[in-house]
Amino acid sequence: MAGGLPGKSSANSSACDNEPRGIVMPEICRETTKDAEFVHPADMADRLEHLSLEKQVCALHNMSKGDAAEALAELDGNVAVDVLENMDADVAAQIIAQMAPDDAADVLDELDEEHRNVLLKKLTRENSEELRNLLNFDPDSAAGYMNTDLILLEKHLTVDEAIAHIRGEMKEKENPYYGYVVDEKDVLLGVLSVRNLMLARPGTLVGEAVAGQAVISVRYDANRREAASALSRYNFLAMPVVDYEGHIMGVVTYDDIMDIIDEENSADMLGMVGADPEENVDTPWPESVRKRLPWLMVNLFNSAISASVVYMFEGTVAQMAALAVLMPMVANQAGNTGQQALAVMIRQLATDRFDHKKAWLAVLREAKIGIVTGLFMSLVAFAGAWQFTANVVVGGVMGGALLCDMMIGAVAGGSIPLILRALGRDPAHASSIFLTTITDGAGFFIFLGLATLLVF
Amino acid sequence: MAGGLPGKSSANSSACDNEPRGIVMPEICRETTKDAEFVHPADMADRLEHLSLEKQVCALHNMSKGDAAEALAELDGNVAVDVLENMDADVAAQIIAQMAPDDAADVLDELDEEHRNVLLKKLTRENSEELRNLLNFDPDSAAGYMNTDLILLEKHLTVDEAIAHIRGEMKEKENPYYGYVVDEKDVLLGVLSVRNLMLARPGTLVGEAVAGQAVISVRYDANRREAASALSRYNFLAMPVVDYEGHIMGVVTYDDIMDIIDEENSADMLGMVGADPEENVDTPWPESVRKRLPWLMVNLFNSAISASVVYMFEGTVAQMAALAVLMPMVANQAGNTGQQALAVMIRQLATDRFDHKKAWLAVLREAKIGIVTGLFMSLVAFAGAWQFTANVVVGGVMGGALLCDMMIGAVAGGSIPLILRALGRDPAHASSIFLTTITDGAGFFIFLGLATLLVF
Repeated sequence: MAGGLPGKSSANSSACDNEPRGIVMPEICRETTKDAEFVHPADMADRLEHLSLEKQVCALHNMSKGDAAEALAELDGNVAVDVLENMDADVAAQIIAQMAPDDAADVLDELDEEHRNVLLKKLTRENSEELRNLLNFDPDSAAGYMNTDLILLEKHLTVDEAIAHIRGEMKEKENPYYGYVVDEKDVLLGVLSVRNLMLARPGTLVGEAVAGQAVISVRYDANRREAASALSRYNFLAMPVVDYEGHIMGVVTYDDIMDIIDEENSADMLGMVGADPEENVDTPWPESVRKRLPWLMVNLFNSAISASVVYMFEGTVAQMAALAVLMPMVANQAGNTGQQALAVMIRQLATDRFDHKKAWLAVLREAKIGIVTGLFMSLVAFAGAWQFTANVVVGGVMGGALLCDMMIGAVAGGSIPLILRALGRDPAHASSIFLTTITDGAGFFIFLGLATLLVF
Repeated sequence: MAGGLPGKSSANSSACDNEPRGIVMPEICRETTKDAEFVHPADMADRLEHLSLEKQVCALHNMSKGDAAEALAELDGNVAVDVLENMDADVAAQIIAQMAPDDAADVLDELDEEHRNVLLKKLTRENSEELRNLLNFDPDSAAGYMNTDLILLEKHLTVDEAIAHIRGEMKEKENPYYGYVVDEKDVLLGVLSVRNLMLARPGTLVGEAVAGQAVISVRYDANRREAASALSRYNFLAMPVVDYEGHIMGVVTYDDIMDIIDEENSADMLGMVGADPEENVDTPWPESVRKRLPWLMVNLFNSAISASVVYMFEGTVAQMAALAVLMPMVANQAGNTGQQALAVMIRQLATDRFDHKKAWLAVLREAKIGIVTGLFMSLVAFAGAWQFTANVVVGGVMGGALLCDMMIGAVAGGSIPLILRALGRDPAHASSIFLTTITDGAGFFIFLGLATLLVF
């Protein structure tokens, strides 16, 4: 784990060569040398992210290739790309060669094609073929997260042979959690943990040991959310990935799954309000502007639709300006009710397998909640509006409109994610914007409509 | 893994005894008998959740205690409680005794005190003491998720002795991923994976093998979100939990962490809109009503504050009802901008260690985004409002108010989670409700205020 000494840094390291040796050597390089053994790659990546690009390149140069590979895998995507593009290509390729194939493919996928090809050409033939292969898969599919470095156990091996085989592979494989039992065509027959093997009767064939096992796996083109929820459901350390004929292609491991779960959750929350699913506080702000503007335009357009409802009743508002005071309260309250239903539903779709019937029962549940909370709130609103306008009819209009709009909000909030999903879209995306359009439009229409009919 | 035959079911099983044998035996029981070996506990729990309480109790009776324990651990909390309370206490205690201590403590924690004490008394002394101990910890802390069943390696053991020790323990320990190296007082000195041990030079003492290792652990009273983000950051399979003196107390494993991550994410999304953080589609709807109503009341109160702003300008609205048409658009648009900032910030606080300076830089970033998107949208709104009212001043009021309110929304959305956190509260909770109050109130005030000053 020890990093190279600064004095030994590669002659190719232009960034480092510009620094007079031993005097203004970037602090990170000295630190790396001093106590490299004590730093976890995730912490190293953190430190790197606080440095200038030049120092980042220098620091990676000075680490052992293995350490650099681990740190690179932990770096934020944008940072990793910058570093690789500004690093001597030979060194970059050596680092890539040390990375787990799935991590290497992720980083390469972010590079522009030219840089990617330069690096791939510098790898061994076998290495570069494996990576090119991984790069062909959809990065959001199970295959996009797949690690191809796994332990296969041919079904005719005995349990003892299998243990010996795993011990022999242990040096090379990073995470030898499971042995995958396959037939001669690499069709996955079952999975055995090291513990299963140690507890099995010594002479048993691994094929027998897994006989009758219901093989749990995901298909390579399953989307990553599916892979994540399957692994998390079964508490596996690694989920095997297979093709349509059941041949094993690789595994997705729990550490990638934890990242996927977090990213998907961000995607839901950000997507719901029309921000980019991958945005975070490190996204350059002009990029955020570009990504958020379209949805803000949609939102403006939608709110113009709701506003046109108010326009229909302009005469009513002109006769009684107090209506303009109460009107936004109806819309706001129904919007909040709808968002509660929306949030419950989006979370449910994210974490659960959710059949058609259960989904609509959940909408029915929201409708009930909408009616009861609506009745309660409308009583409060009726009393308040009556008090405020000294007009019991306006109070009634307020209460009635609030009840109706809260019910509409509850049902809309419950249904929008299901409708989006049925249309093959992300159930969260921009759902809050659509919801608000409905609750605003309906709220204004019912409130001003009732007022027009009843008050004058 | 084979379940008991229906005919062998415990004589205590009242639910099952009522069923005439072999004729209307609940389907799940027959199924369990037929192919118990093929069913993963998570799937078994799913099937159980679709049955009546009586059949659930019966099915658990008929499984082997080990299978029942695993299935029970996977059941939804409410269901598990119902089942345990309606089951023969002796059988229930036998099942609890087979569960991993952390899972057992979770289930017991949900029971009422009387049932809990009955079950604890039926366990062995050692078992019940361990569980009572776990039950004392805050269920939302690291200790609340802790598994106390771990492999300790005394520092004077050699690597070979350690391997032999682990092999010996393998039968009993469910997940022997790591050996924890401790001194004579059980202070944690370092962690070795089975792979580390196998790759180490045979004669080495485990104490030497971990010398200089920066021990990464969480304290028992750390909140669960902290434990989750630490494990996920370092990609550990298990995170050691220590007391204030560094004595090892247990480990939190990756499978619990995946559940925590999901639950915390739900809590953020649901909390943001004022729903109960633990609500899901299976929550009984009257309970949801009870939990949502207080926040709907807060929301109504808050929207009354915004509405009072409109009331201040009632005269202006009465003179020009078109203002009532445009006014909600300003508030809506600023609300959406604010929610985008809110979502980005809440996600960031959930997944990242986030220092003071970086936090306020992130708010600054949102302010910039707010200004630029605000400028753009206000040009569109200016043109639209001018066109609609044929009054360039109203157009200007619309554009100016929108720009100001979008900036306010962006800054408020970025700051609210930070302020809530600084107040020691959950950064997500009800944040959307507070945000809307600000954007509505400010939007109405600026728009109607400018109109009052400039239009007439």
